[in-house]
Amino acid sequence: PRGAQRPGLSSTHGASRQSHGHFPLGPHPASGFFHQVREPHSSLWPHPGGIEARSPDSLPAWSIPEKDAGKLYNTCAVFGPDGTLLVKHRKLHLFDIDVPGKITFQESETLSPGDSFSTFDTPYCSVGLGICYDIRFSELAQIYAQRGCQLLVYPGAFNLTTGPAHWELLQRGRAVDNQVYVATASPARDEKASYVAWGHSTVVSPWGEVLAKAGTEETIVYADIDLKKLAEIRQQIPIFRQKRSDLYAVEAKKS
Amino acid sequence: PRGAQRPGLSSTHGASRQSHGHFPLGPHPASGFFHQVREPHSSLWPHPGGIEARSPDSLPAWSIPEKDAGKLYNTCAVFGPDGTLLVKHRKLHLFDIDVPGKITFQESETLSPGDSFSTFDTPYCSVGLGICYDIRFSELAQIYAQRGCQLLVYPGAFNLTTGPAHWELLQRGRAVDNQVYVATASPARDEKASYVAWGHSTVVSPWGEVLAKAGTEETIVYADIDLKKLAEIRQQIPIFRQKRSDLYAVEAKKS
Repeated sequence: PRGAQRPGLSSTHGASRQSHGHFPLGPHPASGFFHQVREPHSSLWPHPGGIEARSPDSLPAWSIPEKDAGKLYNTCAVFGPDGTLLVKHRKLHLFDIDVPGKITFQESETLSPGDSFSTFDTPYCSVGLGICYDIRFSELAQIYAQRGCQLLVYPGAFNLTTGPAHWELLQRGRAVDNQVYVATASPARDEKASYVAWGHSTVVSPWGEVLAKAGTEETIVYADIDLKKLAEIRQQIPIFRQKRSDLYAVEAKKS
Repeated sequence: PRGAQRPGLSSTHGASRQSHGHFPLGPHPASGFFHQVREPHSSLWPHPGGIEARSPDSLPAWSIPEKDAGKLYNTCAVFGPDGTLLVKHRKLHLFDIDVPGKITFQESETLSPGDSFSTFDTPYCSVGLGICYDIRFSELAQIYAQRGCQLLVYPGAFNLTTGPAHWELLQRGRAVDNQVYVATASPARDEKASYVAWGHSTVVSPWGEVLAKAGTEETIVYADIDLKKLAEIRQQIPIFRQKRSDLYAVEAKKS
């Protein structure tokens, strides 16, 4: 681990706290990082610190490499207050892009994709999980909204090309289209890293407002997840009941 | 008709021209406007000016009330260079919202919704049509993208509440999520009107950039619809072939 801090989103009595630090292993690991990966002690990669088990209200906001049956996944695990595993999200959409001269990355050369949706309940709200590039795929957020999620959390590390172009736009789009809160946690920017992250962990309201946004440095941002506000917005602009289910549907092929 | 100008989006040899003026009858007509509606000469509302038939390259970017079999629709008709009707889009999602103290509107008290998708081909690109509130429903844009549209056109008149909050965000979101151009045409702002439109007709690239944007006054904006650029973006960030069709699908229930 390179640095004791790691990003995390905590939710306490309806309030969301989001820290913003260096990942022990980045969420967008270049192939080289995987040389550090050793056999985990179990089918779960042991998480670095166990803070989830000690803090009853913390939510996940980072992802690490997970090895299972000879394959590697980009995984975000969520633990309950008693240390039990609530859900484990394996990134569904691998980051394979090629913007010549700007950013080229082929995550699928090293990793395998997950194959299931990841939601979990907390005492405060229902949460849907995605990892980084997953946020580009609106269907995932649409299915999470159908399933009652009020908050979508995406740990992610956009870069200096896609970050300024799309990081905030995608979050605000998911929030407004699905009338949910969206929270992201990015590593802080390290200009010397082989992969330079955009930073700017953010929390967006269901109205599309940026409620809190980090800069490029390590920091903690706070925002309220206000379910009353969410309900009001859904009442005011009732897109869910106005959808034309006679004309179209977003359908999940798996439970 | 109140004013000779009317909005229109023209496409000439890959270039898009977009005018921005007062609607003869607003695209968000308050009930009162409908007292002006008379029996049309045919099942089509006669369009005010016939400019489409005279200009071989014009595309539609306004909507008017259409009466058919005793019902009223909010309709955008598209005519080819020879005056033939190419497609007629009847607004699918009626504007029924209630943001207390800000904007309350119940379009369904007066109008009936359409029940079909509306795409058409031009010598330059394939176009998908929506009207105003339709833009909030991402499924419509997703289906148009599946069907090969490279440009989505939404005549629309957001207001002084939803305009600043969502007008540009929704366009940029549709553009990036579906890697298409998005063009909107709004009436200019008339502070004395019963419904005050936000204005700001806009053209957005598939990368989510605002290429051209009107102010609140009558004006014409121009932007290139560059299909080579569109193809490059789809190559660089290939979300269409990365979609997890084993996990989800956006499905049209009608052809």
